Parts: sequence; structure tokens; C-alpha cells
Amino acid sequence: MEIKQPYLLFLADAADPLAAKTSIGVAQWRPEACVGQVRLPGCKADALVPDMTAREAAAKGAKTMIVGAVNRGGVFSPAWMQAMNDALEAGLDLAAGLHQRLVDIPEIAAKAKKLRRKLFDVRHPTEQFPIATGKRRSGKRLLTVGTDCSIGKMYTTLALEKEMHARGLKASFRATGQTGILVAGGGVSIDAVVSDFVAGCVETMSPDNAPDHWDLIEGQGSLHHASYAGVTLALIHGAQADALVMCHETGRPHMRGLPGYKLPDLREAIDLNVLHARLTNPKAKCIGVSLNTSKMTARAAATAMKRIEDKVGLPCVDPSRTGVGRIVDRMLRIK
Amino acid sequence: MEIKQPYLLFLADAADPLAAKTSIGVAQWRPEACVGQVRLPGCKADALVPDMTAREAAAKGAKTMIVGAVNRGGVFSPAWMQAMNDALEAGLDLAAGLHQRLVDIPEIAAKAKKLRRKLFDVRHPTEQFPIATGKRRSGKRLLTVGTDCSIGKMYTTLALEKEMHARGLKASFRATGQTGILVAGGGVSIDAVVSDFVAGCVETMSPDNAPDHWDLIEGQGSLHHASYAGVTLALIHGAQADALVMCHETGRPHMRGLPGYKLPDLREAIDLNVLHARLTNPKAKCIGVSLNTSKMTARAAATAMKRIEDKVGLPCVDPSRTGVGRIVDRMLRIK
Repeated sequence: MEIKQPYLLFLADAADPLAAKTSIGVAQWRPEACVGQVRLPGCKADALVPDMTAREAAAKGAKTMIVGAVNRGGVFSPAWMQAMNDALEAGLDLAAGLHQRLVDIPEIAAKAKKLRRKLFDVRHPTEQFPIATGKRRSGKRLLTVGTDCSIGKMYTTLALEKEMHARGLKASFRATGQTGILVAGGGVSIDAVVSDFVAGCVETMSPDNAPDHWDLIEGQGSLHHASYAGVTLALIHGAQADALVMCHETGRPHMRGLPGYKLPDLREAIDLNVLHARLTNPKAKCIGVSLNTSKMTARAAATAMKRIEDKVGLPCVDPSRTGVGRIVDRMLRIK
Repeated sequence: MEIKQPYLLFLADAADPLAAKTSIGVAQWRPEACVGQVRLPGCKADALVPDMTAREAAAKGAKTMIVGAVNRGGVFSPAWMQAMNDALEAGLDLAAGLHQRLVDIPEIAAKAKKLRRKLFDVRHPTEQFPIATGKRRSGKRLLTVGTDCSIGKMYTTLALEKEMHARGLKASFRATGQTGILVAGGGVSIDAVVSDFVAGCVETMSPDNAPDHWDLIEGQGSLHHASYAGVTLALIHGAQADALVMCHETGRPHMRGLPGYKLPDLREAIDLNVLHARLTNPKAKCIGVSLNTSKMTARAAATAMKRIEDKVGLPCVDPSRTGVGRIVDRMLRIK
């Protein structure tokens, strides 16, 4: 699956920035790949790129319109159809990460077929993947893991890519969730892969590479999350990571979506992730902690990071406050 | 999914007993549900039930013909079509556990539709499952786990059911793989479920029950298997098991299908499975080891079981040599 860039971002009638977080994320991490945005009346979100029509975007070189807003229940709103039609008419492909599929909307599917446009439903993999072999691959790999879901794994992985590219290092972001896929223009929504093939899928998406090349694999879920830990473990085994980065946020009252389930101790979480990672890569180690301090003052954040460093003996960063340079420094020491 | 019993077993042209192991397994564990078998010329397997035609089986009350043989590549052989047609004509449903689906054979699908027979492709779940909630359920649960794949988990679970029923105890075998499903007449092939929903699927298949009722959940894979550990972890979390039974075989040169991957230490395997099980059931414990000693002499088997008991401090049984009574004794102590 290769989604052609640059993009036009469709924010639709997003009721708040959260409802358009996919578009906003794509614009944040790939500003050079976003020519503009389409917003419907009442839209309360802004990806900070120029507003324009699909026709104007096509004239500026756009190849794909990202349907980067969510609606209740993960379905496409009837109010969005005109804009999606306009994009197809203007020569653009469509890509979306909703539960409902573009290909299941008869009107859109028919028009795309007639005009020979592609429809990408990134939450619904269509490829076949092999069973994991566990065979070691050349090149290096980093995987982000977490004490919980939705805790900053994609953000951290993309920050690592940005820092490595700024230093002229070889690195590829490997997307495993819908926003990441739209940012990267490819990848697999691995929580939608049949369970037998998840580890094999991760092996496939991070193949043999140059000895000094790093695959930066976006993590999913958490080994400590009662709903999704199986996805995480398959990802850990398939990644054969040389380096893990543990993502964390302090102060969460319980695991996401699971009242009554407390977050794990950070040290224990690191140890358990490393233990499992060593099955397929005996040299695997955790090289740092990425702390989401977005709800803290600068002072509280600094204290929290210092406390974690003292506790686990590893660099603790917040990508948006401190950058991830200290983690990249550690990566470069891995031979 | 409920597959109607009793069955007619189709052993086809199985080249050896292994190629008909599904039929043989069903006849072994549900002899009362098997009225007969159909064997084609050249069949080298025997489920030890009377040979008969589909018409004769229907007259004896058979409701479903189990296509209980495998062919190279998991596809149906053209040589099987006549017998499958005959079964539909005689009034039977068809159930199969191959990779290829019955519903994808146009001739069979059309005939089934015309005659209103049901086709069950047990390796391909068609139900939708929820995301796991992690909420505790009433009733008790036992899950079989293993140091490797194909090491006796289904066999052990069915032996526990048989022993409990013989003692008049309340127990239900919960099938998670194709042979188990055909034995039970229902269940879900969980390695074919989309990864996000595996733990939720297990929660669904072992719902609230009476306080003295035991769900005996068939395990899959192994936490130490680089290809399938994610399936196993989702199963452990969804099961919320009160009791685990560790299945093991000594002398395997490497993990099944993974040259270079050694089997884990038995004590470490028990500890890791219990650690994960306690996330969703803090009282989870391992209550015994089930050792597959089928390749040993009686004397070597006795020595091996004694050695394991000394090492891990738990009862070690071989269901086919010693029965599983000592494990059921331990289950009854769990309040």
C-alpha cells in the first residue's frame, strides 16, 4: 500500500480539534506533504495549512485527499459526500482511517472505479502476511512500547525519525496505526490483522536493511492492557528490536478504558517488555523513557523526569519539551 | 455457531492417520456423537466407527458430515466432491476445518443453498466480537498453557472435562481450535480472529456462570513461541483463569517450526504465564503440569514426571497414562 503524497486534508465538520486529530497529526509531522485543507461550515479544527478547494489542491500537485476527521461510530457522515465526490472529480485518490470503509460506500466506490481513482481504507489491511519465522534480520530496529495505550508511542517514534533525519542518519518510520500510516503514506494497521499473522506482519514491514539503518517501529497497546496486550506482544516479537523506548504518563487514574486497572510500575513494565523482546533479539534493551508531560507545568515536568531518571537509571525525555536527542545518542552506541 | 451432532466422519483418502487426525480426535472424545465414517479407496486411516454411506448415516440420525481429513495446502481435493455432494443430498450439513472454505466451492455452496443445508468453516470465524473489558465474571475457569505449540493442550483440556463429568462436576470444554470446535460442536478458532478482538472473544466464549461451574478453555500457542505468543497472551487475559495447567514435552530439539529457538525452562514458563494471568485474575495460579510422554517407555515416563514434580512442586500427570484426577483434586480446592 502506497498512498501518494502530497495531500489535501479534509477536516470536514470536526466539532473540536480532537475530532480532526488525524489531519492535524499529518500536518504536524509532514508539513511539506500537505498542500491545504478543506473545512466544512461549523468546523472547529485547523491544521494550519491554507484552505482551498479540491480543484485548487489538484492544481498545486495534491494526489490524495485524507479524510482526516472522525464521526460518531467511525462512519462517514452524509454531509461529507459532496467533498469526497469533488476530490475524486478533481483527480485525487481518497484515504481514510475510519471503521467504515470507503469501498463500502456505493456512490464513492462507483465514482472511484469510473474515474480510476484509488481508495485507501488504512484501518482495514487487505494484504496477506506470513507466519513469523523469528529469523534475525540485518539492520537495526527500535520499538516504542508503553505502560498504557494512547500515551505517546506514535509521537515519540516520529520525533525520533525527525531527530535522526536532522542528523543525517538513516531511519524509517514504520507505521502500525491509522494516523501513522497516513503520515508515512504506508504501513499496516496491525490491530486489524488476524492474530496468527501479526508478528509475521511486523517482520514483513521491517525487512533486512543496511547495518547502520534504523527502522523506527510505532508501538501499539501495552503488555499491561487487558484488552490489547496480545497485539503488543506480537509486535515485540516481530520487531526483534535492538532498542525499546518506554512511553509513559504520570497521574492516569487507571488504564485507558479499564476502570479498576491501575497502571503498572514503570520499572516492572520496562523489565517485562525487555524480557519478552529478548526472545527474538537476545541483545534487546530499553534505552530511555518518553514521558508525556503535556498536562504539567514546566517545573512539574522537570521534576517528574528527574524522578524517573533516578528510579530507572535511563534518560527520560518529553519529545515536545526536551526533544529526543539523548535517546538518539544512546541508539548510536548500539553496535 | 452450533454444529449439530451426531456426526458422520469423512476420512476421505487420508494417506496416514495423521492426515485424518481431526476425525480420529472427534471419534476418540465424542464416540457417542459419531454414527460412522466414510472412507475412500486408498484411505489408510480408521476412526474405529462403522463404515457407511451418507444415506445410511442419515437413517441412523446423523446431522452433519465432518470433513475430518487434510490435504496438501489445506484445500479440498476434487476426489472428495462426490462424497460431499452425497452428504448434502442425504440431508446432512457439512463442517470442515481446512484453510480453504466450503463456502468458496461454487458447486458445494450452490447445492447447500438449494437444499438448505448449513456449511461450517470452523477455521474462519464469521462472528463479530467486542473489545475485552477485563471485567470479572462469575464461575470458575481453567486454561491450558504450554511451553510450545502442539504439545497436548487440547488433549489435556478434554481429559479434564471427561474426568470432571465422570465425577458429576459441572464443566464445559471451550474450544479455540478447529479440532476442538468439531469435538465440541461449537467454539471459535481464535488464531483466525482479528488481533484487537481476541481477548474479547475469549471473554465472550466463557461468560458468567454458576459459582461451581468450570469453563475448561483450550489453550493455543505459547508465550515463548515467536510466531504465536500474541494469541496466547490475549487468551490468558481474556480467560481470567483461576487455574492454569502447563503442558510440556521433554526432548524437543527446538520450538515447533522454529529451528534455533530452544524450549523455555519449565519453571520460568510457569512463572511467566502466572504473572500475565494475574493481570485479569489476581488469584490465578498454576495447579499442575501435563506431560506428553507418548514417545517414552513407561519407566522413562515415570522418572520424567517425578523429576518435574520435584522441580516445580506441582502434580505432574500424563492424561493418557495417569489420567488427570490429581489436577481435578487441586481444582476442587479453589474457592
